[in-house]
Amino acid sequence: MAVADEVLAGNRRALARAISVVEDGGPEAHALLSTLYRRSGQAHVVGVTGAPGTGKSTLVNALARAYRAREVMVGIIAVDPTSPFSGGALLGDRVRMRDLTGDRGIFIRSMATRGSLGGLAHATTDVITVLDAAGYQRILVETVGVGQAEVDIAGAAHTTIVVEAPGLGDEVQAIKAGVLEIADVFAVNKADREGADRTVMALKMMQGLNPSGSGHHRDHPGKHGDPGPQTDGSWLPPIIKTIATSGEGIGTLLHWIETHANTLRSNGDMARRENARAMSMVESILRDRLLTNLLAQIPDREFHELIDAVVERDLDPYSAAEQLLFEGARAQPRG
Amino acid sequence: MAVADEVLAGNRRALARAISVVEDGGPEAHALLSTLYRRSGQAHVVGVTGAPGTGKSTLVNALARAYRAREVMVGIIAVDPTSPFSGGALLGDRVRMRDLTGDRGIFIRSMATRGSLGGLAHATTDVITVLDAAGYQRILVETVGVGQAEVDIAGAAHTTIVVEAPGLGDEVQAIKAGVLEIADVFAVNKADREGADRTVMALKMMQGLNPSGSGHHRDHPGKHGDPGPQTDGSWLPPIIKTIATSGEGIGTLLHWIETHANTLRSNGDMARRENARAMSMVESILRDRLLTNLLAQIPDREFHELIDAVVERDLDPYSAAEQLLFEGARAQPRG
Repeated sequence: MAVADEVLAGNRRALARAISVVEDGGPEAHALLSTLYRRSGQAHVVGVTGAPGTGKSTLVNALARAYRAREVMVGIIAVDPTSPFSGGALLGDRVRMRDLTGDRGIFIRSMATRGSLGGLAHATTDVITVLDAAGYQRILVETVGVGQAEVDIAGAAHTTIVVEAPGLGDEVQAIKAGVLEIADVFAVNKADREGADRTVMALKMMQGLNPSGSGHHRDHPGKHGDPGPQTDGSWLPPIIKTIATSGEGIGTLLHWIETHANTLRSNGDMARRENARAMSMVESILRDRLLTNLLAQIPDREFHELIDAVVERDLDPYSAAEQLLFEGARAQPRG
Repeated sequence: MAVADEVLAGNRRALARAISVVEDGGPEAHALLSTLYRRSGQAHVVGVTGAPGTGKSTLVNALARAYRAREVMVGIIAVDPTSPFSGGALLGDRVRMRDLTGDRGIFIRSMATRGSLGGLAHATTDVITVLDAAGYQRILVETVGVGQAEVDIAGAAHTTIVVEAPGLGDEVQAIKAGVLEIADVFAVNKADREGADRTVMALKMMQGLNPSGSGHHRDHPGKHGDPGPQTDGSWLPPIIKTIATSGEGIGTLLHWIETHANTLRSNGDMARRENARAMSMVESILRDRLLTNLLAQIPDREFHELIDAVVERDLDPYSAAEQLLFEGARAQPRG
């Protein structure tokens, strides 16, 4: 049986192997993804991001348990864009395994950086496709940090949870401006700590000030209706207090994820997100393929001479690219 | 006089305008960069990165003052990959301006995310080129956070300073594994705080465990010679205690930056880095140009029908890309 068929039949070992193939990329990965992609599209992808120290991993574990109690199949992808080697990711894996191991309705995979961030976001999307095709109904994608890395990876998610925690310092508060844009739900974790209400208030205030918010929030900063779907079809991110270690607030968090999923489907946002996602996948594949094709037309010696000229400042990179494009077009056989 | 000439003549207003042009991209940016790039290559680029709360900005200001005391021209680029809108960056600008304004030997520019991270790293490289051509001898590139964003942007730097501070929590300690790879110099800032020696010790221990370290460190974990250039030509990152607010340790930090710059030049690493940097600039330009060229060959309707088929899972993104490549090759006029 081909790996793709075994994955579709629910073979966990084949699934692990398929994910490795997909992570490694290349023609074998493309063939596998061509088959699996057509069987995907059922899963709801939940991104979970936030600064170090907010207790994201514990929250993801608690969410996974809550979904399992409802007999929902859960995939977890832990992405660590900060780790060029896999040490950190593997450590997280082991901590997690102790907690959730033995449940066949959960599949956990850690991914560390391979090459560039663009590559990581790409690989994450592909691994989501594999888990989706394999029948995992909710896929939790956890990313470390609060940088653009997370914003890019969040592009692959349908619902993004931004995890905050009290007392992480003023500079972290300032960073929230950036994540406000991507949050569909806020979890203020470690809510039993001092300052949790202050964190909730700060988030509410920022929602009022959010320049990209829908009209009526902008007109009445700080004055909100209920969170969730608004009368104009937009979505006001709810702010949920959680204590992941005890499970407090996790049921509410799960409720809001499901409500957001339903809202996305009913207001047309899901279709728009899926369209943007498909376009960015195709374009990202094309960028790589086109570059590979072009460079295959250029003799190595010529390429390296051009790069040397750029290093020596005899040539600028734009002119070098121009020249390579010209050479490539000349060498191209007519299709 | 053309903008490029005015920049080369030291006109600050032209410089600000040139940077805006370059940030916006497009043909005008390419023309400007073609001219300025050939006049660049003199500056030493210093990346400064670290977690929120480490006092990076204060450290960058202190370093800039120390360089100015030595009559070195300093450019500062503050990159905020966490902020999709420019609010955060502008705030940082104002704080800085109060401190360093009026000195014509310093030029400060803040950059927030525009589109993807790849775009930001690209734009940062271009702004470095402009400041370099304008005669700024040291360019300090400050990035917020500890994610892959910073690793990518650090690729543009010759010397990368990773800023740590005592008492930022255990999870932050764990993240150090990722930044260890990119650090040429460690600054343990806020060194008057409790726990500074523990942070220094933790970094020393991690250096001993670093699997990518040169042979003799790996063979004798935890046993180090003096930091800086090693007998085998490699570089052992020094760990410097600083108190940026009072200027303590800043002179030592500056000394190590200059030592690292000299070592890079003498051991051939500078040539290798410049080569890799030129290649990645050219390839990044090519990727964008090739995609634009291809999509110009494809009728809009056809492109959107293919994307719709991907959304509907009738077609996978790899096959869609394949089809677009085929259409593009067929439509391409012979060069």
